[in-house]
Amino acid sequence: MNTSMIRYILGHVLKIEAILLLLPCLTAVYYQEIQGVYYLLTAAICIVLGFLMTLRKPKNNVFYLKEGCVATALSWIFLSVFGCLPFVFSREIPSFTNALFETISGFTTTGASILEDVEALSHCALLWRSFTHWIGGMGVLVFLLAIVPMSGGSNINLMRAESPGPSVGKLVPKMVSSARILYGIYFGLTLLEIVLLILGGMPLFDSVTTSFGTAGTGGFGIKADSFAGYAVHLQWIVTIFMILFGVNFNAYYFILFHQFRKAFGMEEVRAYFVIIIASVAFITYNIRSMCTGVFDALTQAAFQVGSIITTTGFATANFDLWPKASQAILVMLMFCGACAGSTGGGIKVSRLLIAGKTVVKELRSYIHPKIITKVKMDGKPIEHEVVRATNVYVMTFVVIFTASVFALSFEGHDLVTNFTAVAATINNIGPGLSLVGPAANFNFFSPISKYVLMFDMLAGRLELFPLLILFHPTIWRELFAHKAQERRAARERRKERKQR
Amino acid sequence: MNTSMIRYILGHVLKIEAILLLLPCLTAVYYQEIQGVYYLLTAAICIVLGFLMTLRKPKNNVFYLKEGCVATALSWIFLSVFGCLPFVFSREIPSFTNALFETISGFTTTGASILEDVEALSHCALLWRSFTHWIGGMGVLVFLLAIVPMSGGSNINLMRAESPGPSVGKLVPKMVSSARILYGIYFGLTLLEIVLLILGGMPLFDSVTTSFGTAGTGGFGIKADSFAGYAVHLQWIVTIFMILFGVNFNAYYFILFHQFRKAFGMEEVRAYFVIIIASVAFITYNIRSMCTGVFDALTQAAFQVGSIITTTGFATANFDLWPKASQAILVMLMFCGACAGSTGGGIKVSRLLIAGKTVVKELRSYIHPKIITKVKMDGKPIEHEVVRATNVYVMTFVVIFTASVFALSFEGHDLVTNFTAVAATINNIGPGLSLVGPAANFNFFSPISKYVLMFDMLAGRLELFPLLILFHPTIWRELFAHKAQERRAARERRKERKQR
Repeated sequence: MNTSMIRYILGHVLKIEAILLLLPCLTAVYYQEIQGVYYLLTAAICIVLGFLMTLRKPKNNVFYLKEGCVATALSWIFLSVFGCLPFVFSREIPSFTNALFETISGFTTTGASILEDVEALSHCALLWRSFTHWIGGMGVLVFLLAIVPMSGGSNINLMRAESPGPSVGKLVPKMVSSARILYGIYFGLTLLEIVLLILGGMPLFDSVTTSFGTAGTGGFGIKADSFAGYAVHLQWIVTIFMILFGVNFNAYYFILFHQFRKAFGMEEVRAYFVIIIASVAFITYNIRSMCTGVFDALTQAAFQVGSIITTTGFATANFDLWPKASQAILVMLMFCGACAGSTGGGIKVSRLLIAGKTVVKELRSYIHPKIITKVKMDGKPIEHEVVRATNVYVMTFVVIFTASVFALSFEGHDLVTNFTAVAATINNIGPGLSLVGPAANFNFFSPISKYVLMFDMLAGRLELFPLLILFHPTIWRELFAHKAQERRAARERRKERKQR
Repeated sequence: MNTSMIRYILGHVLKIEAILLLLPCLTAVYYQEIQGVYYLLTAAICIVLGFLMTLRKPKNNVFYLKEGCVATALSWIFLSVFGCLPFVFSREIPSFTNALFETISGFTTTGASILEDVEALSHCALLWRSFTHWIGGMGVLVFLLAIVPMSGGSNINLMRAESPGPSVGKLVPKMVSSARILYGIYFGLTLLEIVLLILGGMPLFDSVTTSFGTAGTGGFGIKADSFAGYAVHLQWIVTIFMILFGVNFNAYYFILFHQFRKAFGMEEVRAYFVIIIASVAFITYNIRSMCTGVFDALTQAAFQVGSIITTTGFATANFDLWPKASQAILVMLMFCGACAGSTGGGIKVSRLLIAGKTVVKELRSYIHPKIITKVKMDGKPIEHEVVRATNVYVMTFVVIFTASVFALSFEGHDLVTNFTAVAATINNIGPGLSLVGPAANFNFFSPISKYVLMFDMLAGRLELFPLLILFHPTIWRELFAHKAQERRAARERRKERKQR
């Protein structure tokens, strides 16, 4: 295990966090809030630690998938642990567990909150919460790749461990430049949304935090009623941008390079839009009697569908009160999730497509046992390895899901609460149904359950395995064996010197 | 498609059903119940139809997997449609939909009932209900194989389509004789239970129906309170036999031939017992405050765990009132199910073992990407094909499950009801939670939802694909193309004759 390389990467991550923490500091200066001091303090801690950790460059640049996974998982844990400190220091969220929950929920773009009253927070805290969504949306390590050039295979293993969904690999050859392009698209779209919202009459602060939440498909709002209080045209802008951020970013990449046929021919993106249109149509019809008119029903349906399928989690309606059929659709969309290679969470449309095609293929093999067919995607046969990995992913997902629901059930809440709380966190959505519905929060859970849900959020964001690997005994043995080996080597060197 | 062979098999199935219907007739004679006439009438219909369908022996004996699947699925549908007629004729269950639901529930060994008052039924109806469990438990076609010798590959394709779980194949070489041995074990164990229950002081009629329900892991009771009214020692006898009928029958086969090491070394059987012991221990601890003592808690826990994991569905306690953690365990056991090659339903312990091992293997491949390992079971590496089939099975299961929950959600019942109603039917258990809890029934669902649930029961019993294949357009095209082809050939022959 290349421990020194991992240390080096973690150091860089802390340095980046220090820089990012300056944004809430500036906000505090603008609004003359005393809490800004704590963000500055945390930034100072991060910069000192980061500096110490990157002092010695690692001699060995070799970096395998397992190191990539460990580095990624630890990066996200480091980011969250240090990112929650300002909340604790300023006593805006006094409990460390709660602050950590809120921060992990932010970085993983979940948007599940433990806050009883969001509007009581200072501006800098609100901004930091939303900013964590934006940071987490594209992935910190992709950002790291974009600014800190690293050698050889390290990039691909880091990117493989962090990027959401099975398809980013396509852009691999020029890793650093494509990381830059992806971040560029991300930045551009966010800026466009901020501008449009301001033009639509939204205050600057609201526009920025909303856009951060939309871009990262996060869902932290700054109002107690999430998004219901804003004008209808603002709701539509947010709806459209939520859906846009759920598209596979490769599509934008293709559009940027004028490969329109490739962009619009992507099967996953098409399926994504078909699902959205069908769901919106159905729910509009289903809830029309609860609304003031068809357009109102359409607005509400589109917003909620866009919010849930992209796993953003903003809400303009308390869908816990909707008809059961509409609720069932939303629960299904929770698991569906957005496109691979987008900022959204969930199982991902491409995985479901592959799963569905595998089932159809199996059925065909019963009818024509001798014909050998391959599952195809975008006209090309999918490699056996991808199909296998998808199957294993879905199965692992089910295992973690079941175990989490079981762990939560010790608290005695109803099954719907437990089930949708886990669904909403592992898919990085935010609100669930019943006790964790859009009008409620997660504060009533015991600390143990909160840590289970934090694990689920991280597992969902990191696509399960990079986080699971941290719990494998071999990894720990290797991490410490390495240390022991180094110490032994040093001792022997000293001995040799003495003998001389 | 070998249509004439399918017709021939269906004819035989009807003949068998006619014979089986004589048992409720005899019961009616004994209890002097007029309803017996309707069972005799149905038997007459079956024998006439069966005779007509087997009049002409098929010329072509070639029989592929797809014909095996179609024949199996249609056999079960035929059995149920004709088996429900006595209920309709006698007006004990006047609605055809309800009667069909009850009969499919019987043959698939589900045990979900639409009856408001079981105790109002005649003795012959009660016996027929329980008898369908016993018939369905081992599979009708395996029975057919045991008594009607068929040539060549037909056997294996029929057996593959009907047998529960992925492991029966082991006994394949001498198909007919092993079918006989399996039915012998089944018959012997049932008889043993009847005798023990009678010795324990249970009336003959109760002993027989209870044993039928236990053997088929069905769950239809003859009392309104299911099993709570019987003495504790009778409950324990039933508990033990439920668990015994959930064991992979290959284990008994091995024991019969004194291969004890093979029998007790089966990984699946061991995992099955570990799961049972752990669940019983946990639930006993969890519900001890609701019971009169530790032994009472143990009795209730063991009965319910045995009933749910084997997908029997008898109940001695209304577990809808138990603590949520115990309920969560029961819901998990619903999906787990018993061993492959037993009479129980569910996903099967062996599939879960394979799934779990695949996940562990995947994790290991992240750490040592270059080591190629194979998933092992009982010390032998599992063929790639089995792993793949397991993955596809689990995925298809999830797809059908989700679609069914969605279809049910149109009725506006709560999510727990819809979720556990589907779980209880597709896993062939019987009772769920909330509105379909052990103290309730399925009558309140609309006819459409009832047909969805019937589909789920059949899909669960036939391991999904043999039933799904019936809905594939190719199958229908081939069935009718065959007819059309025959007609065309006949026409041409006539033409030729005329020309001559």
